[in-house]
Amino acid sequence: MQTLDAHTQTDLIRVANALADAAREAVLPFFRSSDLTADNKLAEGFDPVTEGDRAAEKVMRELLAELRPEDAIFGEEFGAKEGTSGLTWVLDPIDGTRGFLSGTPTWGVLIAVGPDTGPQLGIIDQPYIKERFLGGFGEAWVEGPLGRRDLKTRTTSDLSDAILFTTFPEVGTAEEGEAFHAVSHRAKLTRYGMDCYAYGLVAAGQIDMVIEAGLQSYDVQAPIAVIEAAGGIVTDWQGGPVHQGGRVVAAANADLHAQALEVLSKV
Amino acid sequence: MQTLDAHTQTDLIRVANALADAAREAVLPFFRSSDLTADNKLAEGFDPVTEGDRAAEKVMRELLAELRPEDAIFGEEFGAKEGTSGLTWVLDPIDGTRGFLSGTPTWGVLIAVGPDTGPQLGIIDQPYIKERFLGGFGEAWVEGPLGRRDLKTRTTSDLSDAILFTTFPEVGTAEEGEAFHAVSHRAKLTRYGMDCYAYGLVAAGQIDMVIEAGLQSYDVQAPIAVIEAAGGIVTDWQGGPVHQGGRVVAAANADLHAQALEVLSKV
Repeated sequence: MQTLDAHTQTDLIRVANALADAAREAVLPFFRSSDLTADNKLAEGFDPVTEGDRAAEKVMRELLAELRPEDAIFGEEFGAKEGTSGLTWVLDPIDGTRGFLSGTPTWGVLIAVGPDTGPQLGIIDQPYIKERFLGGFGEAWVEGPLGRRDLKTRTTSDLSDAILFTTFPEVGTAEEGEAFHAVSHRAKLTRYGMDCYAYGLVAAGQIDMVIEAGLQSYDVQAPIAVIEAAGGIVTDWQGGPVHQGGRVVAAANADLHAQALEVLSKV
Repeated sequence: MQTLDAHTQTDLIRVANALADAAREAVLPFFRSSDLTADNKLAEGFDPVTEGDRAAEKVMRELLAELRPEDAIFGEEFGAKEGTSGLTWVLDPIDGTRGFLSGTPTWGVLIAVGPDTGPQLGIIDQPYIKERFLGGFGEAWVEGPLGRRDLKTRTTSDLSDAILFTTFPEVGTAEEGEAFHAVSHRAKLTRYGMDCYAYGLVAAGQIDMVIEAGLQSYDVQAPIAVIEAAGGIVTDWQGGPVHQGGRVVAAANADLHAQALEVLSKV
């Protein structure tokens, strides 16, 4: 796929923001709502889907039908819609449903767009805080309670100085978990529980690394675009592309990325 | 100590809010500031103290010297100041310094006031979100992005339906950690990384329980007042008073509290 022209890039940024605005409005009435109904998507385990999840994806799909009818869509809740433009919007209306159900401000709306080779523009939006991380097509910013600021990843060069995040201490399989904890033991600080918000913090230069396993494409595409636009690196544990999901390492820079891969690539 | 008269209660609520307003303003310029200096309070481990920590406690102490000069103060950063009123303000300008340094919106300003027997009024304030949980003297509310709402703990009656939070998976000593994880395995969901924000979520009826060990008085007094005002129970792991710190279990109701104590009280 050729580079998109400036007009298209501007339009995609405009539409991505419009989707995030609409999703924010659609989902917020369900957050901390006492009559929230939580279905279980999986027969086992705990993977709640909320009405807010569906409402937010629905409104984004309606906007895309109107504003970008030729683009394809892949959404967490309502699956795939084919397109003719060569571009696909990848949507996760609520990334971090457990955090959402617990009332934490760490879940987010994830929006990404790009060709099959990977996302070129991404948004991580936190509706409760009214905070948005956007990266792609020359833009890289966070806008929220402190105004709008440029995103720029950290220059931490040694893993022993790094702040590492993941959502759960039980990362992936037993073997994957062991590799994660081997990296964690070399890091300065490991913290949990942030859902997609942690990727925003990597892009904003607040933390150094996120490592997760078992992600879906819609979990990771927006973080890839945002963090790459801020100067970071997001790959799988072997250093290859990860926009289809799987095991993810998101690092502030090449030095840290290489040090994490020394451990992770053995799994 | 006798019950405080209505005038005093109203004044304490007013002053507590004034302290939280001042601390919010003092600390926020340091949050996500790239030139943040992190000293290490402990020779070992990672317990950063920020300039924001000091700035927020300083401004609260100055306000108390002006508005409540006869009350005692115990603050995390600047220690004890004696008083003559029988009331002590217990201040933690930044609870969750690791979260603060990582840029997460989960730390808070903790303010409590009461006689030696325990806090009667508490505030958990999150300056970045501009969200405040207040409990005591007949008030129990959260005010933030969704407006002002009453605080009311959940009625979950069985631990197997409960959402449990703690800040780190490594809770206390090896024995304490084992007890925590025994409760965790019986709970529906365990989440990490929220610092004091988790206590606000118990009070707001979003989650069911927080269990921690090794807390200081200034870590726990505000949560005690807020959660008790919302209908919950906060004790040590033996069911006794915990306002002096130590091992804490904060539960939405008596049923859950009893089920947690069945496990925790053996440690």
